[in-house]
Amino acid sequence: MALEPDQTSVDSITLFVALLCSCIVIGHLLEKNRWFNESITALAIGLCSGIIILLTTEGKRSHILVFNEELFFIYLLPPIIFNAGFQVKKKQFFRNFAMIILFGAVGTLISFVIVSIGTMQLFKKLDIGFLDIGDYLALGAIFSATDSVCTLQVLNQDETPLLYSIVFGEGVVNDATSIVLFNAIQKFDLSHITSRIFIEFIGNFLYFFITSTLLGVGVGLISAYIIKKLYIGRHSTDREVALMILMAYLSYMMAELFNLSSILTVFFCGIVMSHYTWHNVTESSRITTKHAFATLSFISEIFIFLYVGMDALDIEKWKVVSKSPGTSAGVSSILLGLVLVGRAASVFPLSFISNLFKRSESDKFTLKQQVTIWWAGLMRGSVSVALAYNQFTRSGHTQLRGNSIMITSTITVVLFSTVVFGLMTKPLIRLLLPSKHLCGGVSSGSFDSFPSKLMTDLPLIANGDAEVGGNNIPRPTSLRMLLATPTRTVHYYWRKFDDSVMRPMFGGRGFVPHVPGSPTEPLLH
Amino acid sequence: MALEPDQTSVDSITLFVALLCSCIVIGHLLEKNRWFNESITALAIGLCSGIIILLTTEGKRSHILVFNEELFFIYLLPPIIFNAGFQVKKKQFFRNFAMIILFGAVGTLISFVIVSIGTMQLFKKLDIGFLDIGDYLALGAIFSATDSVCTLQVLNQDETPLLYSIVFGEGVVNDATSIVLFNAIQKFDLSHITSRIFIEFIGNFLYFFITSTLLGVGVGLISAYIIKKLYIGRHSTDREVALMILMAYLSYMMAELFNLSSILTVFFCGIVMSHYTWHNVTESSRITTKHAFATLSFISEIFIFLYVGMDALDIEKWKVVSKSPGTSAGVSSILLGLVLVGRAASVFPLSFISNLFKRSESDKFTLKQQVTIWWAGLMRGSVSVALAYNQFTRSGHTQLRGNSIMITSTITVVLFSTVVFGLMTKPLIRLLLPSKHLCGGVSSGSFDSFPSKLMTDLPLIANGDAEVGGNNIPRPTSLRMLLATPTRTVHYYWRKFDDSVMRPMFGGRGFVPHVPGSPTEPLLH
Repeated sequence: MALEPDQTSVDSITLFVALLCSCIVIGHLLEKNRWFNESITALAIGLCSGIIILLTTEGKRSHILVFNEELFFIYLLPPIIFNAGFQVKKKQFFRNFAMIILFGAVGTLISFVIVSIGTMQLFKKLDIGFLDIGDYLALGAIFSATDSVCTLQVLNQDETPLLYSIVFGEGVVNDATSIVLFNAIQKFDLSHITSRIFIEFIGNFLYFFITSTLLGVGVGLISAYIIKKLYIGRHSTDREVALMILMAYLSYMMAELFNLSSILTVFFCGIVMSHYTWHNVTESSRITTKHAFATLSFISEIFIFLYVGMDALDIEKWKVVSKSPGTSAGVSSILLGLVLVGRAASVFPLSFISNLFKRSESDKFTLKQQVTIWWAGLMRGSVSVALAYNQFTRSGHTQLRGNSIMITSTITVVLFSTVVFGLMTKPLIRLLLPSKHLCGGVSSGSFDSFPSKLMTDLPLIANGDAEVGGNNIPRPTSLRMLLATPTRTVHYYWRKFDDSVMRPMFGGRGFVPHVPGSPTEPLLH
Repeated sequence: MALEPDQTSVDSITLFVALLCSCIVIGHLLEKNRWFNESITALAIGLCSGIIILLTTEGKRSHILVFNEELFFIYLLPPIIFNAGFQVKKKQFFRNFAMIILFGAVGTLISFVIVSIGTMQLFKKLDIGFLDIGDYLALGAIFSATDSVCTLQVLNQDETPLLYSIVFGEGVVNDATSIVLFNAIQKFDLSHITSRIFIEFIGNFLYFFITSTLLGVGVGLISAYIIKKLYIGRHSTDREVALMILMAYLSYMMAELFNLSSILTVFFCGIVMSHYTWHNVTESSRITTKHAFATLSFISEIFIFLYVGMDALDIEKWKVVSKSPGTSAGVSSILLGLVLVGRAASVFPLSFISNLFKRSESDKFTLKQQVTIWWAGLMRGSVSVALAYNQFTRSGHTQLRGNSIMITSTITVVLFSTVVFGLMTKPLIRLLLPSKHLCGGVSSGSFDSFPSKLMTDLPLIANGDAEVGGNNIPRPTSLRMLLATPTRTVHYYWRKFDDSVMRPMFGGRGFVPHVPGSPTEPLLH
C-alpha cells in the first residue's frame, strides 16, 4: 500500500498493539492468581516477545521500537500522572499532606544521598568505566524514583485508608522529587560544589515545586471557569470531554515549555479538575472522563512495562557487558542493596519522627505498617529506566563501557525488583495486615478497583466533608489550636474559603445547577 | 529542562494544543450563529495563526508542524472513521445499503472518470509543468473524496432519516473508494492500459473491498467473543474500554499491514463492535466508549482542519506559484468546475435510476432532495489534502513547478469549497427542506447531535427491529418476493441468522445477562 511512508513502523505498531491486547487478556485471566498482576504479565510478555524477535532476526535486535524518551515523557507519562491526581481521594490526600510531603520529598532526598554516596564509595572497587560526580548524583536520583503500582494493587483503600493514601501520595511526590532532582543535577555544574551553588540548588528546587504547582492549579481553575461560564455541557458532552483532555495536556506541555516540573503540574491540574471542573459537566461527561482517563493511564502503564520487558534483551548493550559479567552483577547487587538500605533509612526514622507528633496511640505507625511502607517503595519502574536512558545514552545507543553497564544494571534492578519483590508483595501484605477482604479476588485486587472505589465512596466523602466542615471538629478559635492540630485547622479555613469564594466562582459539588443535558440518562434509569 | 530532546517540538505541541482548545471554545461561542461550524472556525483560526507565524518568523514559515501523512493516516484518520462506523444507525444504513453503495462507489467512479478526463483535456491549454497519466488519474481520485461533515451538521437525522443515512453512508463509502482507487493507481503501471490490466484493476478493487470488510468484521467479532467469554466486565470497566480501543486500532493497523483498505476495515469493525461488543460490556463502559470515541474523532477532526488552515499559507509552495498567478487560478477554477460537474453527473442520473426501482411515489427522490445530496458532496476536505500531498510531494517539499501548482490548487479548492460552500449549506438546506426544527440551535445544530441522537433513538430502533423481524412485513416465502424487495428480504434472513447463531455466540442486545458491575450506577439512579 503506497500510502504509508514506512512499512517497518506499521509492522511495529501492529505487533505492539496486538501484544498490548494480549497483555490485557492474559492479565485478566491471571488475575485470580494471587501472585500475578498486569505489570508482571506485561514484563513477561515483553521478555518473551523479545526472545522471539531475537531468534527471528538472528540476534540482531530484540525490540520493535527504539526506546524514545520523547514518547515516554510527552505521551505516556502525562496520562498516568494526570489520572493519579484526578482519581486521588482528595480529602485523605490533603489530611495527610504533611506526612506525604515528609515521606515523598524528605524521604526521597535521604534515599538520594545514600544511593549517591554509596555508589561513589562502592563502585571504586569495581572495574567500570569512568563516571563523574554528575553520574553518581544522577544514579541517586534514578534509584530514588519508586513504583508503587504493585503495592497499591493489593492494599485495600477502605480498610487501611491512611496507609493507602500515604503509599499512594508518596509515590507521586517521590516521582516528582526524583525528576526535579535529576533535572537540577543535569543543569548545574557539579564539578565544584560551593555553598553558594548548594543554596542556589535548594532555591531552584523550591522554585520548581511552587511554580509547577501554581501552574497546574491555574490551568485547572481556568478549565473549570470556562466550562462553568459557557455552559458547554448544555450542548455537547464530547466538547466538554475534549476540552478537559486538551487542557490537562496543555498544563503538562506548558510546564515543559517553561522548564518546570511537568509531572507536578499535571498532578495538581488533575486534583483541581476533579474538585471543580468535574462537577460542572454533564453526568455522561463525568462517567466518560473518569473511565477514559483511567483507561488511558492503564494503557500507558502496560505499554511501558511491555516496552521495558522487550528492551531488556537489547543485544547491543549486553554484548559490552558480557565481557565482564561479574562486574555487571556486582553493580546490580550494589544498587539493589543501596535501594533497600536507602529506603529503610528514610522510612523508619521518618515514621519515628511522625509518631512523635501524634498524641493518639492508634494514629501511630506500627512496625508492621512501617514495613509495609518500606516494602511499597522498593520496586523500581519505568521512570528509573527513562531517567537512566537520558543520563547514560546520548543517541539511544550505548557504546561506552561504563554507560552500558549502568543501563543494563538499571534494567536488571527494575526487572528483579518488579518481578521478585512484586511477586512477594501479596503474600507479604497478607502476612503483615491480615484481613478477611484483603487479598486478590474480584473486589479488591482488580487493577481499577481504585477509580471504582472513588465512585462508591462518593457518599462517604460527602458525609466526611460535612463532618469536617461542620460538627465533629471543634472550631479552632485560638493560636493554640492551630499549633495543636495544624493540618486540620488549615483544612477548616480552606473549606471556608472554598465554600465562600472558590466554589461560587469555579463551580463544584452543589454549586452548579443540575445539568441533565445527557441523552444517556434514560438508558440508565 | 534537560529531559525533552527537542525544544521545538515542545513549542509546537504546546501551541497546537492551545489552538485546539481555543477552536473548541470559539466554535462553541459561534455555534448559535447559523453560518459557522467547527470546521470553518478551525480553518479560520489555522489561517490566522499561520499569518501570525509568518509575520513573526519574517516570512520563513507558516506552519508549526510539517504535514505528515503518517500522522494523518496512522493517528488522525482511524478514530474518525471508526467512530463513524460505531455511531452509525445500523438499521438505516443496511436498509439503504444498495443505494449507499450505488452513490458511494458508482458515483465516485463517475466523478473520478469525469475529473480525470476533464483535467487531461483542459490542462493542456494551460502552461503547467509535466504531468503524466498517473497524475491525472490521481487528480480524479483526489477530487472524488468528499467531506460531508458540514452537511451532516445541518441535516436532521429524525426528520429526514433517508437523506441523512444516504449522505452519511455515501460519505464513508466514497472516502474508502477514493483511497482504494488512489492506491490502485499508484500501484499499477498505467502508461499502457490494456484490457487485461483494466480487468486486473477491477478485480483488485473488488478484492480490496471484500477482504477489507471481512477483516474488520472478523476483528470486531473476536473482540465481542473475548469480552463475552471472559466476562471482563465483571472486573474492570477500564480493561474493557482499553480492549475495545486497542482492538479497533489493531484492525486498522492489520489492514495497513496486509495492504488492504484500512478505512473500510475500521469502519466495519466499528459497526460490528457497536452491534455485538458494545452490548457485552458494563453500562459505564457503554457510556464511556460512546463518548470517548466521539471525543477522539472530534479532536482529530479539529486537528486536521486547524492543520490544513495553517498549512495553506506555506510560503515555499506559493513562491513557485506566484510567478504565474493566472495559471494557478485557472487550475483551481477548472478543478472546482469539474467537482461541480462530476458530482452532478453522478447524483442526478443515479437518483433517476434508483427512482425507477421504487414503486411508491413517496420513496422517490424529489429534485430538492437530489440537490441536497449533490450539495452535500461538494466540499473537499482533509482526505483530498492528504492524498494530494502523497501524490505531488516526495519529501514534503515541492520544488517542481507542476507539483506545487497542484498542491496549492488542492488547498485552494479545499478552502474555497469548505468556507464558501460550507457557509452556504445552512441557508440552502433551510430553503430546500423547510422545517420548524431544522436549522442551528441547541438541539439539532450541535456538533455531536449525532451520537446523542443515537442514544435517544435506541427505543425507536428497538421498535423498528421488532417491526422488521416480526409483524408488519409479510414473510417472504417465494423467489418473487425476494426479487420484489431484495433488501428487505436479505435483512429479514440476516435477522433470523443473527438471532439464532450470531447473538448467542457473540452477544448483543438481550443476549447477555445484565452486568451491573458498574459502581457509577448509584450515582445516576
